[in-house]
Amino acid sequence: MTRIALGVQYDGRAYCGWQVQPNQPTVQATLESAISQFIGDGQAVRVTAAGRTDTGVHALGQVLHFDAQVEREDWSWVRGINTFLPPDVVVNWAKPVSDAFDARFSAQERTYIYALLAGPTRSPVLHQRYGYQMLPAGQWFDIKEMQTAAQYLVGEHDFSSFRASECQSKTPVKHLYECAIWDQQPFVYFKVRANAFLHHMVRNIVGSLLHIGQGRQPSDWMSKVLAGRNRDLAAPTFAPDGLYLVRVAYPDEFAIPAPHLHNAGFPKELMLQS
Amino acid sequence: MTRIALGVQYDGRAYCGWQVQPNQPTVQATLESAISQFIGDGQAVRVTAAGRTDTGVHALGQVLHFDAQVEREDWSWVRGINTFLPPDVVVNWAKPVSDAFDARFSAQERTYIYALLAGPTRSPVLHQRYGYQMLPAGQWFDIKEMQTAAQYLVGEHDFSSFRASECQSKTPVKHLYECAIWDQQPFVYFKVRANAFLHHMVRNIVGSLLHIGQGRQPSDWMSKVLAGRNRDLAAPTFAPDGLYLVRVAYPDEFAIPAPHLHNAGFPKELMLQS
Repeated sequence: MTRIALGVQYDGRAYCGWQVQPNQPTVQATLESAISQFIGDGQAVRVTAAGRTDTGVHALGQVLHFDAQVEREDWSWVRGINTFLPPDVVVNWAKPVSDAFDARFSAQERTYIYALLAGPTRSPVLHQRYGYQMLPAGQWFDIKEMQTAAQYLVGEHDFSSFRASECQSKTPVKHLYECAIWDQQPFVYFKVRANAFLHHMVRNIVGSLLHIGQGRQPSDWMSKVLAGRNRDLAAPTFAPDGLYLVRVAYPDEFAIPAPHLHNAGFPKELMLQS
Repeated sequence: MTRIALGVQYDGRAYCGWQVQPNQPTVQATLESAISQFIGDGQAVRVTAAGRTDTGVHALGQVLHFDAQVEREDWSWVRGINTFLPPDVVVNWAKPVSDAFDARFSAQERTYIYALLAGPTRSPVLHQRYGYQMLPAGQWFDIKEMQTAAQYLVGEHDFSSFRASECQSKTPVKHLYECAIWDQQPFVYFKVRANAFLHHMVRNIVGSLLHIGQGRQPSDWMSKVLAGRNRDLAAPTFAPDGLYLVRVAYPDEFAIPAPHLHNAGFPKELMLQS
């Protein structure tokens, strides 16, 4: 038996999220079926992912592992599995890893990017790939207020105010390492990096930051929301459309390859920093 | 009666091109229905577009006109029509124009961009938004050869070698003003500007340029293909996926607004130059 790690990208719009559910299209089921078809021994394969992304959420740097009874070259896994995948799910790399590696439990950090378009009209070619906030012509967000507010979130905190009621995490305490905002009018990119995330946490943070960016609340409202530990205090959950799992960090000993971030069409400066 | 010009964007993947066809989804039928619903008088509306884009081809700067029996504010046309459009078609601007304006026949130049991704694996999030060319890891196109070849096409020529058999243009002679290639590895962007285009002309040019970029032909093969005036000489038609009508130029007297190119997520440098 060999444990194989895979680097995977997907467009989440056609899927009810990562995790297998009966009678629903999921990324996990799609990948398990493709791997099983490639191996061709009729055995079911079970994969474990670093981040169990939600309905409509995309991934550029998802990492997963599975245990294989057969030996294949690294590139053969990539090409072979891709042969059985639809065009909205792609394997970028594969490599054998030690049995100590677990895509979920070995992960030290996860990074998400939220890509937002704002302005008087939507972009049809970015539909469901970028979130959208209607803004009248000539108006723009107060990016500095948003950046100030974002700093309240950095550190180890109880993030209950940004936690969906369905969340199954054992603890609402997470360590948020970074919450950066890039102003690239008519786009705004949010990057959030933490040890782990609660259900809907990034979307709830983005929704609250946009409240501040539109002047509905001052930046220090964010510290009150956080301290209140109550989901009713924060802004509504923002749409999943622009949310991407971009990177998962592991201990160096596993030598997990870097994600293929260059092929999504995001600004280069952003990808170099993430 | 007032003649109204509209600036329109669309994601072409769900449509059998621009032009109305029985029992097929087309961008034209979608827009005519939305305009008619917004006006609400039960009358059919007929619109005329600058470029009759093909199945799967996108537009960022399509221009069209129609004749309205009712008066509305410019922004009311935009908001009102958008209310009745699906998310893959968007009106960006509207303005009344003189009766002498015809979106198709007044157009002096059309500009297309072809966006290509190349590399060992596809990008699921750019599926059908960028063309894709498989290249093994570490390989790249000979961009200079492609740029040299592209210069043979500039000027007034008989483009029969790049013309689809279904083409209904009266003449194969077109004036190509520009054929530029940007190397933004792992992307290549082609910009082609001409007075008008033959059916499949941009896709046939891109296919032939990629033949040269991959070393299958030298750059001066392009001049032989052009001189031969025979479709069998050029490379196969490249996929429609990455093709965008980005700009249509009209005489200044009509004061047609610039297209909204900033909201498609393409590199800024590219959009500034197009």
